[in-house]
Amino acid sequence: MYQLYIANKNYSSWSLRPWVLLRELAIPFEERLVPFANGSSYETFRAFSPTGQVPCLHDGGTVLWNSLGIIEYLAEHHVGVWPADVAARAWARCAAAEMHAGFFALRQHCPMNCGVRVNLETIPEALQRDLARLDALWSEGLERFGGPFLAGSAFSAVDAFFAPVAFRVQTYGLTLGAPAQAYAARLLALPSLQRWQDEALRETWREPGHEEETRNVGTWLEDKRAAT
Amino acid sequence: MYQLYIANKNYSSWSLRPWVLLRELAIPFEERLVPFANGSSYETFRAFSPTGQVPCLHDGGTVLWNSLGIIEYLAEHHVGVWPADVAARAWARCAAAEMHAGFFALRQHCPMNCGVRVNLETIPEALQRDLARLDALWSEGLERFGGPFLAGSAFSAVDAFFAPVAFRVQTYGLTLGAPAQAYAARLLALPSLQRWQDEALRETWREPGHEEETRNVGTWLEDKRAAT
Repeated sequence: MYQLYIANKNYSSWSLRPWVLLRELAIPFEERLVPFANGSSYETFRAFSPTGQVPCLHDGGTVLWNSLGIIEYLAEHHVGVWPADVAARAWARCAAAEMHAGFFALRQHCPMNCGVRVNLETIPEALQRDLARLDALWSEGLERFGGPFLAGSAFSAVDAFFAPVAFRVQTYGLTLGAPAQAYAARLLALPSLQRWQDEALRETWREPGHEEETRNVGTWLEDKRAAT
Repeated sequence: MYQLYIANKNYSSWSLRPWVLLRELAIPFEERLVPFANGSSYETFRAFSPTGQVPCLHDGGTVLWNSLGIIEYLAEHHVGVWPADVAARAWARCAAAEMHAGFFALRQHCPMNCGVRVNLETIPEALQRDLARLDALWSEGLERFGGPFLAGSAFSAVDAFFAPVAFRVQTYGLTLGAPAQAYAARLLALPSLQRWQDEALRETWREPGHEEETRNVGTWLEDKRAAT
């Protein structure tokens, strides 16, 4: 059985991607959650991941140490990772790869922290640009392939890649156009994301670096997490 | 026929990746080189690319706007994009995806500028870490899959993804372990990379932003490019 190494559900946006895909496709796997160490987790995570980062998927002796590498590996072994339609699949792969190597302002100014609600005092220009691009991209996919998911009627890897953005929309109260806003709400309502969120909220770990990142970007309105 | 939109061969490391893969696999394509505009190229590149970035591959009405998206699209249509061996392919995809979304210090401190030679006064710690990881990754691939390429006996997409690093090794005189250093030299000696370099050296465009990036990281020793 696959072993998926992940970190804290509250913080680890990269961990969420393969986790939610495996859940949505009902592919069995063993979850191995290793919480972030205070400061650097590099040495801890090096025990199972060559980059010292998560997620990392082990399939017997095969080690997949990168989110997109994991996704493409799964795509070779399971139906439904990418859309069956060739045009939808080409679009989905570009959109997922754009998320994989881009949206830096969104990642910097809106770090994933599922259990808290934050008011951003201002929306920096770079974040505005990222949100405009996100809105255009999501709207394009939804319109072109008919929804309710980004590349058509079924949840696929491109939705998994944007799942952490739905949590960011919720945490920071981000405003998008109506189709994109409704799509973020649909993602959040999925049983898999609800389960991730429930488990995130039950975590009592607080890693100072991640907490500070979220403290620095705005004013905290609410903390829904279990007490430490 | 495919149309591959790229920017200046001297600077555009992302353009090089699909270009060299298409050349090495002898897949016909029409090259559409649009030089970087001074300052931002966003508006210029938006005419053919939804993100305003290069590379962008057009296949009839299908637009592929991301390097990894292009590679996976090509992999569906042509043999040899990824290694045939399943373990080598899994490794190659993770390594390429790691390059796609990582090695930030290498990208920041050693911007691609094929025609110049630069002495870095110091190697910042973050760059040292990237070089150590690069060395470990390349050495692992070469040893595990037998070389002379990263994932075995044939040039594949993972080599295309690291091709710009070979130019960086040359420009900045970077030192790696013997197997990795020899691999960089092998890449540079490929007819496709030689051709890219020849064409880069003949360019007379100088984009101030890219020039400044390279000026700021060290002392220029030599400029092999055609006079402007």
